[in-house]
Amino acid sequence: MQKSFRYELIKKDKKTGARLGRVYTDHGAFDTPCYMPVGTQATVKAMTPRDLTDVNAGIILANTFHLYLRPGHELVREAGGLHSFMKWDSPILTDSGGFQVFSLSKINSIREDGVMFQSPIDGSRHFFSPEKVMEIEMALNADIAMAFDECAPFPCDHTYAEQAMNRTHRWAERCREAHNSDSQNLFGIVQGAFYTDLRIASAKFLASLDFAGYGIGGLSVGEPKETMYRMLEEIEPYMPEQKPRYLMGVGSPDCFLEGIRRGIDMFDCVMQTRMARTGMALTRHGRMNIRNAKYERDFTPIEEGCDCYACRGGFSRAYIHHLVKEKEILGAQLLTMHNLRFSIRLMEDIRESIRNDDFLEFSTGLLKQGIYDRC
Amino acid sequence: MQKSFRYELIKKDKKTGARLGRVYTDHGAFDTPCYMPVGTQATVKAMTPRDLTDVNAGIILANTFHLYLRPGHELVREAGGLHSFMKWDSPILTDSGGFQVFSLSKINSIREDGVMFQSPIDGSRHFFSPEKVMEIEMALNADIAMAFDECAPFPCDHTYAEQAMNRTHRWAERCREAHNSDSQNLFGIVQGAFYTDLRIASAKFLASLDFAGYGIGGLSVGEPKETMYRMLEEIEPYMPEQKPRYLMGVGSPDCFLEGIRRGIDMFDCVMQTRMARTGMALTRHGRMNIRNAKYERDFTPIEEGCDCYACRGGFSRAYIHHLVKEKEILGAQLLTMHNLRFSIRLMEDIRESIRNDDFLEFSTGLLKQGIYDRC
Repeated sequence: MQKSFRYELIKKDKKTGARLGRVYTDHGAFDTPCYMPVGTQATVKAMTPRDLTDVNAGIILANTFHLYLRPGHELVREAGGLHSFMKWDSPILTDSGGFQVFSLSKINSIREDGVMFQSPIDGSRHFFSPEKVMEIEMALNADIAMAFDECAPFPCDHTYAEQAMNRTHRWAERCREAHNSDSQNLFGIVQGAFYTDLRIASAKFLASLDFAGYGIGGLSVGEPKETMYRMLEEIEPYMPEQKPRYLMGVGSPDCFLEGIRRGIDMFDCVMQTRMARTGMALTRHGRMNIRNAKYERDFTPIEEGCDCYACRGGFSRAYIHHLVKEKEILGAQLLTMHNLRFSIRLMEDIRESIRNDDFLEFSTGLLKQGIYDRC
Repeated sequence: MQKSFRYELIKKDKKTGARLGRVYTDHGAFDTPCYMPVGTQATVKAMTPRDLTDVNAGIILANTFHLYLRPGHELVREAGGLHSFMKWDSPILTDSGGFQVFSLSKINSIREDGVMFQSPIDGSRHFFSPEKVMEIEMALNADIAMAFDECAPFPCDHTYAEQAMNRTHRWAERCREAHNSDSQNLFGIVQGAFYTDLRIASAKFLASLDFAGYGIGGLSVGEPKETMYRMLEEIEPYMPEQKPRYLMGVGSPDCFLEGIRRGIDMFDCVMQTRMARTGMALTRHGRMNIRNAKYERDFTPIEEGCDCYACRGGFSRAYIHHLVKEKEILGAQLLTMHNLRFSIRLMEDIRESIRNDDFLEFSTGLLKQGIYDRC
């Protein structure tokens, strides 16, 4: 197991918790800190694999919950796994479906053995246990699989948060036991809601199971960002240094910077692609609603200095404004390319700044100039 | 005028009316016979310009009527013309809006000076005269502009057909007069409904005006295909040999073959892109509805031997079936690439067969094996 998988910690920033690293998988390596575009249904919406290569996506994420429901993990297995099914030869991570079961479906019961839930598509009944989720993720055969966890709601009292965390720990052990793959690598997920004692206990317990890496789940679920940042700070000393750390479902530019300061290596978020389909562009000066009338005759690119296909190709704000107003697919394509490239380029610049001992100044400067955005 | 524009008749087929040629424009040359993908609103739906280059589109079409209504030809002029607006550096042809005025909008009156109509978007009133259409097309600044014509309905009595034809001829003269461009080249449009005498009269009259090329309009408007083919045969001797001939709005594979046998050089049709967005693929054995349950676990490409991005990339019918069922944009993208490449590759093969004195056998073989499809 974990044959070619390896996390290389290249450099630790002296002034912050930022880390420069590289993760090696059977489908090549990716650099960290990194942002993973989300391909929920085995496609990053509106992107071909060559478009993803063009934005320099090092790794993408796919959703176990959605793929289990449609087209079904057995079909993906028959196709030769996700890489073969969607024709993406670089690294892929699948989440465990834990978050989606708790946020998208009607829960019938949470039991020690697993969760009974109803499909949001047709109301059909399904059961996810740690063993079942491992079976599904092994069929999907991404490079990185996440352990099945219970994502406690916000707010949540200490008693329930502790119960959910302990169940997540027992499930993590069962996932570890059930997971059996030559090429796929399993990450555990730290839970514990917003209680420092629980978060630290969770980080310590999971570290003892020696996963290939660690997700931090149950954050960005409605709490103030400062609360999330505090949690990251408090668990940081207990996270194994030689393993990658993945802050799940978080991906706004300010959260990248704040998370990386606190030792995070990997992020994912649907915001980049979802916003694109509503006509929103991310820029270093905040978001831009391309539908705004002021762009109707603006013949400049989305963002000066951006090297995405849309910006370097000279497609103007006026043209994209026209496309979005006319509901033309190309509008979503160009904005998705821009937003993905914006986020990935930000990560490239962040890595460069860590390399140059300049991360604190770089990130402080961007936060001052208004790069923040909602997740 | 018509500075670099030139039609080179490379070879005439000995057994049929098929012609091998090349058209030179300020934005490069394209080979004929050819199929032009349709970019109604200054975008071939779901395609980036690089996707269009990848399918080897030599020339694309844009719709004057739609672009006049939105975003407006003045805005496109400010952008530097259509090539600059949509970032497509190869040849473009704009239709005259004649067909759309008569098929998409409420007509208030057809007068000698032009047509009063209402916008299908907001009911606002507009007036298209030959001079107005030339102004719009010159603002769009495509390489080829079509003269403003009246497209008579089917069926249509001889008296009305003749009136409409004569009006189209007078409008053609006025277009010729009003058109004034260093780079853009004007094509006349042969009308005359389904009356041989009128069609021949129209071909002769327009030839006398010495346009850069000739459209054949008012066909494929509900008549039997045999009727359309007969019209093409009857006017063929009267079409200037040294000018390109464009059969407007026609683009099914069988119509390509039958039209080319009768001396047609250029075609356009929205079928390829529209069908793609409903899950339909064109193949040499007829159409394929990828939504069909039988493709759910079919891991072969859309069409064996096709070199489009979707087929050569190994995206399977099962994957595209999944994408289309889930309404994922990538499904429309991959099928559009396939359908465009299918049509353009067919044209490449047709040109090769003319070059090899093999067109009659080639086209007969394809028609026998069931390549036909609706327009």
